[in-house]
Amino acid sequence: MRTFVIALAMAAFASSASAQQIRGVPPLTPQAPPQAAPITAEQQRTIDRLQAAALQSDRAWDIVEDLVTTVGPRMAGSEAEARAREWGVRTMREQRFTNIRIQPFTLPYWHALRQEASVVSPAPQSMVVAALGGSPSTPPGGVEAEVVRFADMSGLENASRERVQGRIVFIDERMYRTTDGSGYGAAVPKRARCAVVAQSLGAVACMIRSVGTDPHRFAHQGGASRQAEGTSLPAVAISPADADLLERLLSRGPTRVRINIEADIRENAPSGNVIAEIRGRERPNEIVLLVAHLDSWDMGQGALDDGAGIAIITAAARLIRDLPRRPRRTIRIVYAGAEENGLHGAIAYAREHAGDNHIVAAESDFGAGRIYRLRTRFADSALPYARAMQRALAPLGVTPGDNEAGGGPDLIPLRQAGVPVVDLAQDGLDYFDYHHTPDDTLDKIDPEALRQNVAAYATWAYLAADTDWVFRAPAE
Amino acid sequence: MRTFVIALAMAAFASSASAQQIRGVPPLTPQAPPQAAPITAEQQRTIDRLQAAALQSDRAWDIVEDLVTTVGPRMAGSEAEARAREWGVRTMREQRFTNIRIQPFTLPYWHALRQEASVVSPAPQSMVVAALGGSPSTPPGGVEAEVVRFADMSGLENASRERVQGRIVFIDERMYRTTDGSGYGAAVPKRARCAVVAQSLGAVACMIRSVGTDPHRFAHQGGASRQAEGTSLPAVAISPADADLLERLLSRGPTRVRINIEADIRENAPSGNVIAEIRGRERPNEIVLLVAHLDSWDMGQGALDDGAGIAIITAAARLIRDLPRRPRRTIRIVYAGAEENGLHGAIAYAREHAGDNHIVAAESDFGAGRIYRLRTRFADSALPYARAMQRALAPLGVTPGDNEAGGGPDLIPLRQAGVPVVDLAQDGLDYFDYHHTPDDTLDKIDPEALRQNVAAYATWAYLAADTDWVFRAPAE
Repeated sequence: MRTFVIALAMAAFASSASAQQIRGVPPLTPQAPPQAAPITAEQQRTIDRLQAAALQSDRAWDIVEDLVTTVGPRMAGSEAEARAREWGVRTMREQRFTNIRIQPFTLPYWHALRQEASVVSPAPQSMVVAALGGSPSTPPGGVEAEVVRFADMSGLENASRERVQGRIVFIDERMYRTTDGSGYGAAVPKRARCAVVAQSLGAVACMIRSVGTDPHRFAHQGGASRQAEGTSLPAVAISPADADLLERLLSRGPTRVRINIEADIRENAPSGNVIAEIRGRERPNEIVLLVAHLDSWDMGQGALDDGAGIAIITAAARLIRDLPRRPRRTIRIVYAGAEENGLHGAIAYAREHAGDNHIVAAESDFGAGRIYRLRTRFADSALPYARAMQRALAPLGVTPGDNEAGGGPDLIPLRQAGVPVVDLAQDGLDYFDYHHTPDDTLDKIDPEALRQNVAAYATWAYLAADTDWVFRAPAE
Repeated sequence: MRTFVIALAMAAFASSASAQQIRGVPPLTPQAPPQAAPITAEQQRTIDRLQAAALQSDRAWDIVEDLVTTVGPRMAGSEAEARAREWGVRTMREQRFTNIRIQPFTLPYWHALRQEASVVSPAPQSMVVAALGGSPSTPPGGVEAEVVRFADMSGLENASRERVQGRIVFIDERMYRTTDGSGYGAAVPKRARCAVVAQSLGAVACMIRSVGTDPHRFAHQGGASRQAEGTSLPAVAISPADADLLERLLSRGPTRVRINIEADIRENAPSGNVIAEIRGRERPNEIVLLVAHLDSWDMGQGALDDGAGIAIITAAARLIRDLPRRPRRTIRIVYAGAEENGLHGAIAYAREHAGDNHIVAAESDFGAGRIYRLRTRFADSALPYARAMQRALAPLGVTPGDNEAGGGPDLIPLRQAGVPVVDLAQDGLDYFDYHHTPDDTLDKIDPEALRQNVAAYATWAYLAADTDWVFRAPAE
């Protein structure tokens, strides 16, 4: 039987080869991939041990369960976020990390006290709505106007002032579902730019179909770039069913909508990053950075975004902390504050720690799906280290990715400053079903996938920290 | 090839027969099922034609689309329900039904202007909540108390007054998913009885895990039997994620919750049934009754509950209306008002039409899933007619059911008065995911399943109306 199978496979290969020759294509001579840097036998034993321990432990589950149960949602700059920092310090102490501290900073606070929209005519119907982060209040009682619909942002960008003036702009663009979340990048400009462009054309408010992939009656919250551009137009996201309703009403005739927002806006609200370390045994000033963010939007529990990330990096670091011998380099764990409404924690961290020797950084901020790929952003000379990392992660079902890692939102300032980053890329096929909605709750986390995440982070962080590998190009 | 298949089948039969003999079991001699009453060749041609037409038409979709788009949710006794009646009259005219009229009645109106609940301590978190129909208002600002949890209603019923007094009762019972909706019958007593029993034990409010099967952050609305029993305890349903949260908090220690309800309660609000007919050509006083209900809860659009039912019976009747020759009996179409909060329309109809000769009745009020079974509630002597109906429905994938049909909520008064009923039973596996939530929206209806429903209703109603069959036992 075995001989038969081998013969079949060889026949298939021969047939494929001859097909290429028939078409005149020369046989492929692919560029050899870089060799993997060597992992020592002791390191491999440690990796095996970390993976086995991670796959048997529900510590990450317990951490995110505790965060969403005892703190709940934690809007940037709020009293709840302050409680989350206290929780963070307590949690880091329980893990026996060292050098635990809060790095305080302030940010412009925004919170919706009221967020309502309804169809006024042809007949009243209320809609499910979320004010977009940073939206100003409407006048008391709301703004009411006829709706003008655009299938996408470019429709609005190319619209005449006559069509838009005095109206409520509705961008009906849909987001598509992808494993890697690339649909988000394509869909989010309407959230960021709708109010800016609508205001420049004389609109009275902006309304978008929620940036999300679910079919449920939830509006998806999210930030917008208005404030930076001096825009003052009220802006909301509506649920998919309400976007469908508007589309059907507009196909019948003129449709008027009322939007009513009351926003609590304050300057200089307190926030902070919570920071701790596992000090390196040989090279304590060389830092392997693990980041997740502590704040969340307030309609959901912030379980997937980003309680899961907090839990994953914490449980992974704790496994490393418990090794008989700590890694050579320092592992620094950062719970970033105030990510959702403008990366304020990331910016504050990068400013204060610009002089630190960050060897490499990773952020967990894409829910709790299984990690399926390791992408890097290393100097070419460091690609053998990427291969070694990918090889170490292979037993967890992680496949090699390219060298174009983004690193996660809170790593943008460091990446721009040249710090090498990686993406332990999670399967995000359903992430945008829940993202920034009331439905981001604990029950959406799969405990088994969470364990696999911890195993991958522990493996990767240990390996990065227990070497003298460098990932950035040497200074010229 | 054919011979081979027949031989195989015979071998299987022989082997099965000998297996029985080996075990000493005598060959089965089952009781013969009742023979099917004959369907004439002309009737069969008409049935084939109705089914073909129904499966090609999106009229039902257009009807429910129009209802939820131009009217939207339509709470019993509200201005929106009045608009729905106008819509009903207009729709019945468009179908060219005759004898179109509104049967007015009044009901005690209830509507929640405010429905909020939140965890107060150990730390504040808001919950997703729906006031239960008929709940009184809380004092302004709400009621706040420690929560006492019971896994199910019997836990509360067996509780001591000491445990409950001064507290908010929380019934954490789950509902299970079934195709026939039987999980609803098992779960709904907690909704109906929680406030009654909790008040008798001195509680200050009642809170239940929503009666539903979905994992999403929706509370399920629904009526309760409080008013009839003179109960005055505020009562709410909370989403599954919030029920989980309470369970986790209570496992840690004492948990306080605040419930804040403002209810608009009025006596003698106007409602009505919308009624029309297709007059029978030979026996106009014999009535085959098709019912669905026009009102809905107000968080969703009332698409599945019961816009789909309205659309199904209307489109089915219209197909019969368009036949070259009308059936012998009258088909009466009733859009019942005010079903959700107490079957007020059904009771009004039964009172006014007690003297009518209702031959048989069916209600569509279980969403828009495919019909998979025909159940009847006929006199034994009429079972051959049940078999004939089941045979006529077989090409639509409908299988025979038992003779224990319920007939639907709006048929309860008629059924109790002896009117034969049937269940054209829909697949309800996901019905309670959406039932009474904001998520009951048009996009949850599958157009293909809707067409099959219309085909089945048209077939059944035509056959019941084009015969002189009687389904109830003759008077003794």
